Amino acid sequence: MNIGLDMMGGDFAPREAVKGLQLYLSEISSPAFLFLTGDEAQLNDLLQEYQISSSQIKVVHAPQVIGMHEHPTKALKEKQQSSIAIGFHLLATGKIDAFISAGNTGAMMVGALFSIKAIEGVQRPTIATIIPKENGKTGMMLDVGLNADCKPENLNQFAVLGSLYAQHILGIENPKVGLMNIGEEEGKGNILAQAAYPLLKENTDINFIGNVEGRDILLDKADVMVCEGFTGNIILKLAESMYEITKQKNIHHEYFDRFNFENYGGTPVLGVAKPVIIGHGISQAKAFKNMIKVAQKMIETDLLGKMKSAFQK
Amino acid sequence: MNIGLDMMGGDFAPREAVKGLQLYLSEISSPAFLFLTGDEAQLNDLLQEYQISSSQIKVVHAPQVIGMHEHPTKALKEKQQSSIAIGFHLLATGKIDAFISAGNTGAMMVGALFSIKAIEGVQRPTIATIIPKENGKTGMMLDVGLNADCKPENLNQFAVLGSLYAQHILGIENPKVGLMNIGEEEGKGNILAQAAYPLLKENTDINFIGNVEGRDILLDKADVMVCEGFTGNIILKLAESMYEITKQKNIHHEYFDRFNFENYGGTPVLGVAKPVIIGHGISQAKAFKNMIKVAQKMIETDLLGKMKSAFQK
Repeated sequence: MNIGLDMMGGDFAPREAVKGLQLYLSEISSPAFLFLTGDEAQLNDLLQEYQISSSQIKVVHAPQVIGMHEHPTKALKEKQQSSIAIGFHLLATGKIDAFISAGNTGAMMVGALFSIKAIEGVQRPTIATIIPKENGKTGMMLDVGLNADCKPENLNQFAVLGSLYAQHILGIENPKVGLMNIGEEEGKGNILAQAAYPLLKENTDINFIGNVEGRDILLDKADVMVCEGFTGNIILKLAESMYEITKQKNIHHEYFDRFNFENYGGTPVLGVAKPVIIGHGISQAKAFKNMIKVAQKMIETDLLGKMKSAFQK
Repeated sequence: MNIGLDMMGGDFAPREAVKGLQLYLSEISSPAFLFLTGDEAQLNDLLQEYQISSSQIKVVHAPQVIGMHEHPTKALKEKQQSSIAIGFHLLATGKIDAFISAGNTGAMMVGALFSIKAIEGVQRPTIATIIPKENGKTGMMLDVGLNADCKPENLNQFAVLGSLYAQHILGIENPKVGLMNIGEEEGKGNILAQAAYPLLKENTDINFIGNVEGRDILLDKADVMVCEGFTGNIILKLAESMYEITKQKNIHHEYFDRFNFENYGGTPVLGVAKPVIIGHGISQAKAFKNMIKVAQKMIETDLLGKMKSAFQK
């Protein structure tokens, strides 16, 4: 099993990526083999500094870096020797089985959609976020920003992708799927939600439990919550800001600690044909470690194979 | 100045409505004259129990009550002697200048839209919520559930209505208007947000500052945040649930206390021709008191006159 890690992506790269790698190698008894894309000299110095001399790693020199604010399509096209472009090349050619970066989110999206492509049958790949439930459980929400406008069938597909992720990666048996909506009963909501409801209801591949409202997001009503990326992104960023505000105001509670995205690693891109994980720009060691662990689990459980089967019926 | 108060609406009516009335009368040096709609015998008993014998109140007997779960249109039509129907009759005929109820929200909406009607020029009346900013200031968001699907011009009108409310009721000079969106720059977002942006930018009646993202909602970026009612309602209910969760988990902080809706009273219906305020079903004394105070301020500042002028250009 080979996992590619962009060492140059994120505000604290490459040092925090190296520290995350160190954490991963020290924690996991049978680690994956890791291809590290980035500046060879810089990486070798850091690997030496952190005394990482595992036989499980290989540095792949990438002399260019795509900056956090560069135009994604343009940068990917012009910087073919960047750590992200080389990572996607390794993934597309089968040298690695998953690719992780905390770098330019747009470039990661473009790379995932155009060099890896969607699973056959999936109309729109999607990105998901973890939602910490107030009773200690963990749910997920998707889409959280890749698809600002959606058709009803898109939400229905998100439900399938999310259910498989929840089952195999989060370990939730028969995950409950809820449609983000305003109002509890069928027929409530905006035009999109009204049209998506019957599709979800008739979908025998998922365990649809009906509508979930804003007040249900943090409760244990649904494990997988589907919505278009406009609403989902606003919810995600509001939740992230709540965490920031509690930290600033010195409000300490284990529940708020669970809103720290570093605990979950990054955002998986679901619906593309190979595992791709996008990290937060401010990822530090813990986030990098957890992203590698999630990628490993995606490969070990053959999540992508299961997703492909689900859409081949 | 005459304000109508439905004494039978809400889970804790009529007792909490009477207690709220008592608080209001004891706090305000020049109170409005209050028309109390509800069961006369029950109300007189409670008024006696709480020793309210002001010359500023008059009980208007309403033998019927619309339940919290009755079908709004049907109930309003069939229960013309209900405390809500009589309240709207008093408002429509000019006997009162504002009407308040914590009863059936749907019935309040239907009453506001059909017996009072929209301000001329307003395409879609809207409901707003208060947003407690982390720096101590107060913002507002609209629509929060009346209009699940919107056209760009609706959002532009919400911006005008919200700005006038923020200025005259919340006391914010030249309120900053933000468009709820994903992404900071013009051109970002879903189709609705992309189309609404230029309308807001060209609107000389408002102080448009551009897009606001989920992470900006609780920060002091914009005073008035506009969105369609789907996203707005989900944000509102998520914020309310955060307050509930902190209470349950015994997390105490003054910032969370500010999420207690009772501090603000109820939700004004903006864009209808007369002041209508809808209370939360779980309103207690403090919420009733604050709703009366907001209604009084709406009348004193001639907010409705200012809204009518804004749409008569």
